[in-house]
Amino acid sequence: MVKGRRLYEGKAKILYEGPEAGTVVVHFKDDATAFNGEKFDVIEGKGVLNNRISEFMFTRLREMGLNTSFIKRLNMREQLHKQVEIIPLEVIVRNIAAGSICKRLGLKEGERLPRAIVEFCYKKDELGDPLVAEEHINAFGWAEPRELDDMIHMALRTNDILSGLFAGIGIRLVDFKLEFGREYSPDGMVRTVLTDEISPDSCRLWDMKTDEKLDKDRFRRDLGGLVDAYAEVARRLGIINDSNPGGTGPKLVKG
Amino acid sequence: MVKGRRLYEGKAKILYEGPEAGTVVVHFKDDATAFNGEKFDVIEGKGVLNNRISEFMFTRLREMGLNTSFIKRLNMREQLHKQVEIIPLEVIVRNIAAGSICKRLGLKEGERLPRAIVEFCYKKDELGDPLVAEEHINAFGWAEPRELDDMIHMALRTNDILSGLFAGIGIRLVDFKLEFGREYSPDGMVRTVLTDEISPDSCRLWDMKTDEKLDKDRFRRDLGGLVDAYAEVARRLGIINDSNPGGTGPKLVKG
Repeated sequence: MVKGRRLYEGKAKILYEGPEAGTVVVHFKDDATAFNGEKFDVIEGKGVLNNRISEFMFTRLREMGLNTSFIKRLNMREQLHKQVEIIPLEVIVRNIAAGSICKRLGLKEGERLPRAIVEFCYKKDELGDPLVAEEHINAFGWAEPRELDDMIHMALRTNDILSGLFAGIGIRLVDFKLEFGREYSPDGMVRTVLTDEISPDSCRLWDMKTDEKLDKDRFRRDLGGLVDAYAEVARRLGIINDSNPGGTGPKLVKG
Repeated sequence: MVKGRRLYEGKAKILYEGPEAGTVVVHFKDDATAFNGEKFDVIEGKGVLNNRISEFMFTRLREMGLNTSFIKRLNMREQLHKQVEIIPLEVIVRNIAAGSICKRLGLKEGERLPRAIVEFCYKKDELGDPLVAEEHINAFGWAEPRELDDMIHMALRTNDILSGLFAGIGIRLVDFKLEFGREYSPDGMVRTVLTDEISPDSCRLWDMKTDEKLDKDRFRRDLGGLVDAYAEVARRLGIINDSNPGGTGPKLVKG
């Protein structure tokens, strides 16, 4: 499968033209950034793990009837997606207070929120992706009211499905970030679809028994062991082989 | 904890008065029945496993903000619930065609349904729990329109959470049955709450890789190995200890 020209390079991924019109190839890099790019490192193996974990998540969500841009994984670092028009919002779903909301609203990290909270941030690196209200989204037309409804509904369903999924493997889904796009079909219909990635880069994941962080906070907070933590998530999902006593690192299950 | 008089004996459970007003003790028996009681057996260990698995499911659902009657597990065979007025409907959620819907609608077992389908059956043993439409529920007043909305919404959320949970441990949630009740609070409010049990007795669970049945169909279809299958579900959920080489059977993790 031959990919076309580079369309866009983000912090952790590169987008290429896909082999057919209306498709893109997503390449997962090993780059890690935080605090709007102020902190940077290359963490060998992260891209490979995120590619596999994100494939797993999108596959499960698609089975449950959610529209996604994900088509299939191509190789160790790449997946094929439908080309979509990105809606310029980051959608954050929070079950437990952690990260920016703690300082913003005076909450204690680890506190369960009264219910799942859906937040929107305007995707604009130079502004640091500021929090916005529905009022701003409507006024600036970043998303149609129907799309806003779709995003909230799909984000809450994704939260239920993924919270269950992670609970099944002893992990608490604290919060996560989603991105959405518009899929234009040949008949003129526009569908809201889930896109981007779902991985320990975009989720806060805490071990249920030990509260150990199994996500990008290991990098943000200089805790170390990031690849080991991501590999642990993959291992519990059955993506990485359990029994690898002689190996020199996580062994990916074929397929 | 002292339980009171026996309130009701069902096919797989016995209900006793709880230690405090407004509570009941649910006792999980080893009895297995199918085809409206025509088939019967005692399967040693089933009740103990269902008690633990159901505790796990209700705990996860409660964490996700669903109202349930479950308070806590008391011992190996019993749990404490809030006393509720049972709504006389079985609510069935189906993701994949299996069981009665195949014959009824001419579907092939294993076929994924166009979307999750919520069915209602009128709870009446002597009639074999017949399928009913919303029309019947409204006409006979078995549930208020608001309760019907609650049940559909809660059943679909439960489906998302549990489908995710089982997917996390390599199991496909094919379909399952829920029961709901009314909780009357002292201030006169009535809440719709999830009650009864969620276990391999009330779910169809297929291994994702092998399609092996890990549920009560092993009994219905004389496949044998029912307790081993239930124990496998419990093991994957982390309820049963993995490493028990010298043991003589499934070993339950303390707690």
